[in-house]
Amino acid sequence: MARRAIVLLSGGLDSCTVLAIAKDQGFESYALSFDYGQRHRTELRSAGLVAAALGATEHRTATIDLRVFGGSALTSDVEVPKHRIVDDIDSNIIPVTYVPARNTIFLAFATAYAEVVGAFDIFTGVTAVDYSGYPDCRPEFMEAFEATANLGTRAGVEQGERLRLHSPLIEMSKADIIREGTRLGVDYSLTSSCYDPDDRGRACGHCDTCLLRLKGFAECGIKDPVAYRGAVA
Amino acid sequence: MARRAIVLLSGGLDSCTVLAIAKDQGFESYALSFDYGQRHRTELRSAGLVAAALGATEHRTATIDLRVFGGSALTSDVEVPKHRIVDDIDSNIIPVTYVPARNTIFLAFATAYAEVVGAFDIFTGVTAVDYSGYPDCRPEFMEAFEATANLGTRAGVEQGERLRLHSPLIEMSKADIIREGTRLGVDYSLTSSCYDPDDRGRACGHCDTCLLRLKGFAECGIKDPVAYRGAVA
Repeated sequence: MARRAIVLLSGGLDSCTVLAIAKDQGFESYALSFDYGQRHRTELRSAGLVAAALGATEHRTATIDLRVFGGSALTSDVEVPKHRIVDDIDSNIIPVTYVPARNTIFLAFATAYAEVVGAFDIFTGVTAVDYSGYPDCRPEFMEAFEATANLGTRAGVEQGERLRLHSPLIEMSKADIIREGTRLGVDYSLTSSCYDPDDRGRACGHCDTCLLRLKGFAECGIKDPVAYRGAVA
Repeated sequence: MARRAIVLLSGGLDSCTVLAIAKDQGFESYALSFDYGQRHRTELRSAGLVAAALGATEHRTATIDLRVFGGSALTSDVEVPKHRIVDDIDSNIIPVTYVPARNTIFLAFATAYAEVVGAFDIFTGVTAVDYSGYPDCRPEFMEAFEATANLGTRAGVEQGERLRLHSPLIEMSKADIIREGTRLGVDYSLTSSCYDPDDRGRACGHCDTCLLRLKGFAECGIKDPVAYRGAVA
């Protein structure tokens, strides 16, 4: 029987590539998405389409109410910044699109899901190269969470197994990711990255993630197959 | 200005005592409860009453859908065990009332709340003496989570502060907790511990937490002021 893995699947380019990587490594995938009141809800639709296209065994969407605390442009009324220069993203300033403790919360849910389905592997799409400025995407955070999850679950007490966090994109640039996903058959037209899509799901072309995505496709000489609502950089 | 603290407040005896302790230490308390589809929802009402009685600055209840994964007697249709002998609780078997990764999820939300209100202190009611068999109540788990939270938030990057988890009950027996809470003026008639209360909120007197609670009150020679629906052990 194939080993089971939880794959955190936002519906964006990175996590969809990770789902293809988990499949390629022989895991039976249990994909997990979150409805957390995000502005860019079109990504949830993308997550479902990609989970189906890549043959995930199960795809669940957990509803979590991050708005109860407020505090981020992604979940409240703060304006999503535009025309930010990609090269500035490496600075030490945490962007307003940071959602407090979001990855900690997402990984905690993934840990719960893993226990319930008997999985010991959790795949995430965090990257350290195109670092977004979010503290909870750093490798040292991921390692600390893995240690914590092993202490806080049955895995650490009863089962003689260890939960493992896999971050296969951690050393990859956006262009590397797109090349690898293309090799593994990811249909990037189904994915959704924009923080501020319009009602028809078309990307803005100007927010942080659109800029990173477009730069990545440009670097590998592939045309981004998603729809943009105007001229892109 | 008083320092702010997040206090995880289930509405049970332990967490209500912790709220009194945080107040006694001079913190301005932001109490946080969870609606996670628990059977014993009367505890949410208790949490609100105790937060008001002890002067919490704010009390928020985050709705989280743990049922999306199933897997515990507290959130699904598994029967809550009765007549379990308290002395057996120290064994290494995790009880069916364990909710996968629940404390990891709760602490992740507390971390988010702390960031939003500018708190660096999080109080929890976990205890190591009357150990319930839950892996995510162990001191080593709490220490690992604290390290993780500091890596995954603004605290670790921008602010030069450290998030601190406080578990003031960790070395206390149930009787110690009741004595300390009584000294600090906790009205235990407002609290709710039972995993399986009836429609009028009356405790069963026979589940793990009822047994621990009754034993604690008996040891300090105080009568438990909550209502039980029948004869108790």
